[in-house]
Amino acid sequence: MSPQVQTQTYDVRLSNHTNPAARALLECILRKRSNLCVSVDLSTSAELLEVVDAVGPSVCLIKTHMDIVEDFDQSVIDRLRVLSEKHDFLIFEDRKFADIGNTVVLQYSKGVHKIASWAQLTNAHVVPGSGIITGLASVGLPLGRGLLLLAEMSSAGTLAQGAYTDAALAMAREHRDFVVGFIAQRRLGDEDWLILTPGVQLGSGGDSMGQQYNTPREVVRRGADVIIVGRGVYGKRGEAGKEAERYRKEGWEAYLARVGGGTSRLL
Amino acid sequence: MSPQVQTQTYDVRLSNHTNPAARALLECILRKRSNLCVSVDLSTSAELLEVVDAVGPSVCLIKTHMDIVEDFDQSVIDRLRVLSEKHDFLIFEDRKFADIGNTVVLQYSKGVHKIASWAQLTNAHVVPGSGIITGLASVGLPLGRGLLLLAEMSSAGTLAQGAYTDAALAMAREHRDFVVGFIAQRRLGDEDWLILTPGVQLGSGGDSMGQQYNTPREVVRRGADVIIVGRGVYGKRGEAGKEAERYRKEGWEAYLARVGGGTSRLL
Repeated sequence: MSPQVQTQTYDVRLSNHTNPAARALLECILRKRSNLCVSVDLSTSAELLEVVDAVGPSVCLIKTHMDIVEDFDQSVIDRLRVLSEKHDFLIFEDRKFADIGNTVVLQYSKGVHKIASWAQLTNAHVVPGSGIITGLASVGLPLGRGLLLLAEMSSAGTLAQGAYTDAALAMAREHRDFVVGFIAQRRLGDEDWLILTPGVQLGSGGDSMGQQYNTPREVVRRGADVIIVGRGVYGKRGEAGKEAERYRKEGWEAYLARVGGGTSRLL
Repeated sequence: MSPQVQTQTYDVRLSNHTNPAARALLECILRKRSNLCVSVDLSTSAELLEVVDAVGPSVCLIKTHMDIVEDFDQSVIDRLRVLSEKHDFLIFEDRKFADIGNTVVLQYSKGVHKIASWAQLTNAHVVPGSGIITGLASVGLPLGRGLLLLAEMSSAGTLAQGAYTDAALAMAREHRDFVVGFIAQRRLGDEDWLILTPGVQLGSGGDSMGQQYNTPREVVRRGADVIIVGRGVYGKRGEAGKEAERYRKEGWEAYLARVGGGTSRLL
């Protein structure tokens, strides 16, 4: 863990980043006093956009799985973009690319989803080796996109640990222009990487398929710069907006406590 | 390596498999004397279906990346199915699922691609832990589908090796009803797993993004039950059918040599 980055404010850390997507995310976090990303795993565009509109005011980032949306077409992207302007947030397609370089180039730029054309951030597994980063960078860098590497996962029995996590860090260091940080459970490396942590809920426990949860305070203390909350926010029908604001406050208080400015008047 | 499985014929091995997709693949291999899978990584449905129609007579399996097809809709699947009836082959969507159980359930069954509804085989990374298999099985088993785990990869610097490969094997053993084999570079385990090996070309070398190639004879000798050939078959415009037949013969001769019946009259 890097004590220095760990206690730096988002404002100070802005000067450590040159990637346009990373900078835009940090600026949005500061503007909205929100380090909350809501992960919207719903399979119709109506449900997806309803939740996004509800949680929009409280988030810096919306995480999508466009490949689960049954009625996906370009209009879903158009409407999502309108909401991202209205509420001021970035979009992160949680694609978890995991193929060889030649294939991910096509998956990122083509197909019906055309992810690179609308998602400022996406992510990739490092298991194929660094060719996956080279491939994605050839598409994403010219568009000003950023990549997060999956260095750790929150699911039970994950193999993303130990030497695997070290290898992810080493690959990231070779591609600092495009790799802006990690999906991880704690701060990694001494450099300034953005750490996004999924598996966050107030309360603890898990689901029946191996997902494990931690609280916002716990993951921010360990190094999360952005907390990713899914069913914890939109699970209760009609309360997504209220729940998102609750998580925003929790995440921001945890951040202030970490950097040493933990006064509630800054909320 | 298992000497026993390694020298058994596809015919004998049929009795080792209960999964419907695994059995259908072995039966097709026997009917067509083909252990060739052609991987068609083209981004328009017209090109995709043209190549499939050309190579169809020589393959047991067509491997797709539907998420790169720009003009994808249900009619692409309908036309692909017509070709699979016409030429007698199975379909393997190379999705490389790599998320937690709850998410892969949605990715496999929903979205515009509805993979589970048409692909007899698909594959998954084991990095998230065994919840990914539980999730996929909840969708695929009732439909008679089969899953291949990515135990090894053919790209440079892959982390799918050593303890990672061992973990993939252990997870497969816990889900023998649904996991039918591996994407790997050699035979794994003592049980009868189907080994599908990508990165195959006559001639050797690689591409500029880390892919590395081996010959059909070499990968079959190491344990491949199905050889996966991509650009080696359809790279030369208009010669895909001829090239596929050349690879079919190479793959089948290599198989006969391995099981000890290497006479060319069986071609």
